[in-house]
Amino acid sequence: MNLPAVLSLLLVVSTVQAFQYTELAQFIDSHQEEYVETLRDWVAIESDSSNVMRRKDLHRMMELVAQKLRLMGGTVELVDIGEQELPDGQTLLLPKVVTAQFGTDVNKHTVCVYGHVDVQPAKLEDGWATDPYNLTDINGHLYGRGASDNKAPVLAWIHAVGAYQALNMELPVNVKFVIEDCGWLSRRPALTYGTRGNCYFFAEVEGPKQDLHSGVYGGTVIEPMTDLIGILDTLISPSGKILIPGIREAVAPLSDEEWKMYQDIQFDVEDYKNKIGVSQLMYSNKVDLLAHRWRYPTVTIHGIEGAFSDPGTKTVIPSKVTAKFSIRQVPDMDPAMVEKQVTDYLHSVFAKRKSPNKLKVTMVIGAKPWLADTQHPLYEAGKIAIKRVFDMDADLIREGGTIPIARTFQDVLGKSLIMMPIGGFDDGMHSQNEKMSRHNYIEGTKLFISYLDEVSQIQKTSV
Amino acid sequence: MNLPAVLSLLLVVSTVQAFQYTELAQFIDSHQEEYVETLRDWVAIESDSSNVMRRKDLHRMMELVAQKLRLMGGTVELVDIGEQELPDGQTLLLPKVVTAQFGTDVNKHTVCVYGHVDVQPAKLEDGWATDPYNLTDINGHLYGRGASDNKAPVLAWIHAVGAYQALNMELPVNVKFVIEDCGWLSRRPALTYGTRGNCYFFAEVEGPKQDLHSGVYGGTVIEPMTDLIGILDTLISPSGKILIPGIREAVAPLSDEEWKMYQDIQFDVEDYKNKIGVSQLMYSNKVDLLAHRWRYPTVTIHGIEGAFSDPGTKTVIPSKVTAKFSIRQVPDMDPAMVEKQVTDYLHSVFAKRKSPNKLKVTMVIGAKPWLADTQHPLYEAGKIAIKRVFDMDADLIREGGTIPIARTFQDVLGKSLIMMPIGGFDDGMHSQNEKMSRHNYIEGTKLFISYLDEVSQIQKTSV
Repeated sequence: MNLPAVLSLLLVVSTVQAFQYTELAQFIDSHQEEYVETLRDWVAIESDSSNVMRRKDLHRMMELVAQKLRLMGGTVELVDIGEQELPDGQTLLLPKVVTAQFGTDVNKHTVCVYGHVDVQPAKLEDGWATDPYNLTDINGHLYGRGASDNKAPVLAWIHAVGAYQALNMELPVNVKFVIEDCGWLSRRPALTYGTRGNCYFFAEVEGPKQDLHSGVYGGTVIEPMTDLIGILDTLISPSGKILIPGIREAVAPLSDEEWKMYQDIQFDVEDYKNKIGVSQLMYSNKVDLLAHRWRYPTVTIHGIEGAFSDPGTKTVIPSKVTAKFSIRQVPDMDPAMVEKQVTDYLHSVFAKRKSPNKLKVTMVIGAKPWLADTQHPLYEAGKIAIKRVFDMDADLIREGGTIPIARTFQDVLGKSLIMMPIGGFDDGMHSQNEKMSRHNYIEGTKLFISYLDEVSQIQKTSV
Repeated sequence: MNLPAVLSLLLVVSTVQAFQYTELAQFIDSHQEEYVETLRDWVAIESDSSNVMRRKDLHRMMELVAQKLRLMGGTVELVDIGEQELPDGQTLLLPKVVTAQFGTDVNKHTVCVYGHVDVQPAKLEDGWATDPYNLTDINGHLYGRGASDNKAPVLAWIHAVGAYQALNMELPVNVKFVIEDCGWLSRRPALTYGTRGNCYFFAEVEGPKQDLHSGVYGGTVIEPMTDLIGILDTLISPSGKILIPGIREAVAPLSDEEWKMYQDIQFDVEDYKNKIGVSQLMYSNKVDLLAHRWRYPTVTIHGIEGAFSDPGTKTVIPSKVTAKFSIRQVPDMDPAMVEKQVTDYLHSVFAKRKSPNKLKVTMVIGAKPWLADTQHPLYEAGKIAIKRVFDMDADLIREGGTIPIARTFQDVLGKSLIMMPIGGFDDGMHSQNEKMSRHNYIEGTKLFISYLDEVSQIQKTSV
């Protein structure tokens, strides 16, 4: 459901035309309030794709996107991509994919922008300071679930195209929609050239046929929760070492060039620590930290479904508990191999417990990592666009998170791809109090305008 | 919040009067539908005391009980017992306690009935076949949260008094309200002479100041969830051995008399296994099973608050996670000692991890076990009443669960106490699809009527 930034080029000679950046940038500045209002409407829709109960909102969200693009004169399609099968065997209609095309001039490059408008789960009681679905402006920061990930970046691309249209300027390239997904590493604008993949697992331990009273049955039943805690505790050591045999061995070694590149990146360890709010990180130096964010795998245990998770006390023996954990993928790990390694390992540690309960391990997401060539003309175009709008050099960064479609697009289409984030480094994607600053939203729109022009100037021979 | 069965006697000579059991039993049979409707009204109120958001429903529930007892002519008080302090420092009004008195004749014994009308949490999506707050009759079983634990038993006591009133018969004893809490062990009616206590713990591990995206931060942060899983895994072995130093050593050894008593109890291990739906229990023979339900401590991990517990996938590093687990108390354990043993132990295993995260261990409930003399006149009265209504001998059983006020009453008032359950052995208290059978509800009402009469015949000298 994550539809991220991908840019593919038709290999045609571009039509070079005069680029009126100042007029476009002024137009954008003067329409800031309107842009914020549109973002408010989009954030108000709880398009949480991980919750099947919210599927109707997701359909409504996709319809809203399609409508906006239709009103701008795009050739819009809502593509049916079929059904999804739920763990209980039921099927559910997947949200349609919106495609839109602006311009079909074969003499121009075509920029294809991908992004997503679904969001992560969010509830006020998770610890949000504001209603996550009511966009709230606090000192120029626009708080709301999906603001940064990924509704504002999607809108920024739409506004970029809209600005050309409103000023009756010809688009320098053909643009195909939809979207984009990542953030800057620091206050310096960034271009992203790699992401980690992700293998997301469910480990379900099932015992009694229903939940039991812990006073009445405790002591006679082999409790699924105890079994589950026992096997989860074998995944990773306190010092961050992955204990599943074979995982670490597959990882490409850190090269001297990489080490040097990480060393040169603007990244303040103390800032990072303060921002997260911890007194100590897993590693104390910059290169180790960046390397473990971007190019080493890690295991995170996200939570347990089926156990008692509400406030208060409940004396229950949960009958079926499902742990959710994921392993970030990096070159040269292979998700199919990881699935087997994890499944075999957990079954072997579970067998040692001699429990009558049943263990089921399922890999529900298996997304490969992605890595691009930072010398590619697309990246050169991005660097120039950033220099123009922000008057700064871009950081070349990787992303610890996963944007599965990036790798898929590169593999399937054979086209080149760039990620051009506009989210801030402190936007809180996937966590409470997610926000997008007005600055990044508006300047980001200008960056996209500028980038479209830069791409139009790339020569056919060089891509 | 658990207000269970307690019966205290004023030590006066009883007024013996003719007991018209048949008329009373017929009256009860002919009012079955009305009794079920009242239970339906009570079950409809989500009086979940563990959820502070439901406090209003709990107040409403207590008001409904008071009103019912007032309409019957009881002297009713709603006693304010003050406020409760929440973990965040806020205070919240505790639900009032309802007291009611029927009769003040100093020549009669006084039976004091205690019970509770608050319930355990329940949601349809926990796996209920029916709406937990809409009492549903399926083949004579009345499904609903709180049906068995403890609303129907409370109503049965009220109906017992009401039947005497409706037939213009004098109550053989004075009755003080409210109530009762436990179930039979088999299809044979039972008297309960002991309960385990319960020490309920919160173990909170706090790290980053807010939830983090596991892709973006995973690998650099020492995750609270990993720490929590690590320390939970040190509480109990796969074979059920409690690993916290000092706990097992405090437990009174199993006597030969106990062994013999357990051996004689009607309890079918295969039935028990089938009812729970497991292929193997922690122990395979009857005495071990009963002993580990009733007279040995155990550890149950109930769940984790603050982690991702919904269906679907979420790539979050939870910033603060709180495990809920409890240890059942038996003679001669001491909750204050257990609190220290658990706290010290968890801090010591946590220290070995060298984590920068903060661990906080809190004992939020510390309830002692309770044990009565089965030869006491109250138990003799109970045995006779059971024989009359069910034409069977009572099982003398203990209860693995906890009824904290039982012990408190015995200690504070110095009065004798009996527990006379009417819930069925398969009622599913605290779990999904809780129910009370019509049979137990109606025959239980008759049992209480019969018991009140038996108590009136106990001589002053014998109690």
